Formats: sequence, structure tokens, C-alpha cells
Amino acid sequence: MTKQAEIKGRVWVEVGGVKFIGPGKVQLLELIGEHGSISQAAKAMGMSYRKAWNLIDELNATANEPMVLTQKGGQSGGGAQITSQAKELIAYFKAMQNRFSAFIREEETTFNKFLTKNQ
Amino acid sequence: MTKQAEIKGRVWVEVGGVKFIGPGKVQLLELIGEHGSISQAAKAMGMSYRKAWNLIDELNATANEPMVLTQKGGQSGGGAQITSQAKELIAYFKAMQNRFSAFIREEETTFNKFLTKNQ
Repeated sequence: MTKQAEIKGRVWVEVGGVKFIGPGKVQLLELIGEHGSISQAAKAMGMSYRKAWNLIDELNATANEPMVLTQKGGQSGGGAQITSQAKELIAYFKAMQNRFSAFIREEETTFNKFLTKNQ
Repeated sequence: MTKQAEIKGRVWVEVGGVKFIGPGKVQLLELIGEHGSISQAAKAMGMSYRKAWNLIDELNATANEPMVLTQKGGQSGGGAQITSQAKELIAYFKAMQNRFSAFIREEETTFNKFLTKNQ
């Protein structure tokens, strides 16, 4: 069996040294959009409601426009929805991840020369 | 003060699900080359000798040719040197990191639109 090098990596976005958006927040936003509820989205990710709320609160505070709107009924009461701004952010992040994946695929073969004996 | 998005990321190389080379091993190899000693390289990284030895052992076992050669006197006795293969691996990894940095710089401005109010 021939050994194959696999390039692995992660990318995320920080603002002022604090994570702004990464794979986790993107998933959370998508699940809020799907379930219409922060608590159900948190549950689907195995995350506490408090943690999910803090992530969203941080995101809303950093962004120029809110990413998640909560309806009347309080934080855990009424539903939640993601804004068109959030949908755009998700799309931007996923597009960057796709470009990152393409970068990784291009690099993939580079390291195989260190694994296989010259024939 | 205008908020700026910074893309952050990490890349490393795995073989069969096990890390083959990443920023840490590259630094270790460079320090072994500099000091001519695994124990001194480990010390410079604040790493135990055992941990450093295991990393090098793993690297040597995965690569097609040894990356580090130890001299007579046993593992902790005589000196150690990195091979030309190791120097090439370091160069390959750093080149990939440079390309990754270029990728990140290109992406950097993408997310600023979510931070600054439209004027």
C-alpha cells in the first residue's frame, strides 16, 4: 500500500484578536436558520444554550449589522431568525473554505516524494 | 478606529491519519540542525527529550529516508544531525506556508464588508 500525504488545515476570521467567524459559528447560524430557534440549534450541535447565545451575541456585536434577530418572548422564548447579512456571511465563508480546499488539493502531491522510495 | 478582519489558519501534513510534518516538527528539525543535538533542541523548545525523540522517531519511521541521524554514544549521548532530506522537507514545508500566507492575504479584505457601515 502506498503512503499518501494529506494536507490538513483550518481557516477562520478574527477581528481585534477575537474569533469573528469560523466553521463552528457558520454551522450554528445555519442551524438557527433551519430550526428558527437558538436553543434547538444549540441542541443539534451538542452545545449549551448559553454558549450558543454568547457566540451569537459576540457576532452581532462585532458585525456592522445584526446576524441573528430574536423575536418577542425573550431570549429563550420566541423564535430566532438569521438575517440576509448572515446568509451572505455564510456564503462568503463557505466560498473561502472552498478556495482553501482547492489550495490544499494543489499542495497534496508535493509531499509524497518524502514517503515513497525512488523506483 | 476601523475594525479589520484578519484571516487566521494552520496547515500541516498527515500520513495515514497521523501528523507527518507541521510547524512544530519543522522548528524541532531546524533546532536539531542548529544545535547538533536532540536534547538541546528539545530544551530550546521547552519540550521534554522523550517527546522530541518520539517526534523524530515517528518522522524517521514514516519518511522514505531518515530525517535525523544520531551518532554513536546512544540516543542522549552523541550528537545528532539532520539529513539533506530533512533540509528539503523543511524547505518544502516553508514554501507551502508561504503560499498559504499569500492565500490568506488575498482573502483578508473579503470580510471587511461585514464590519464597517456602508458610508
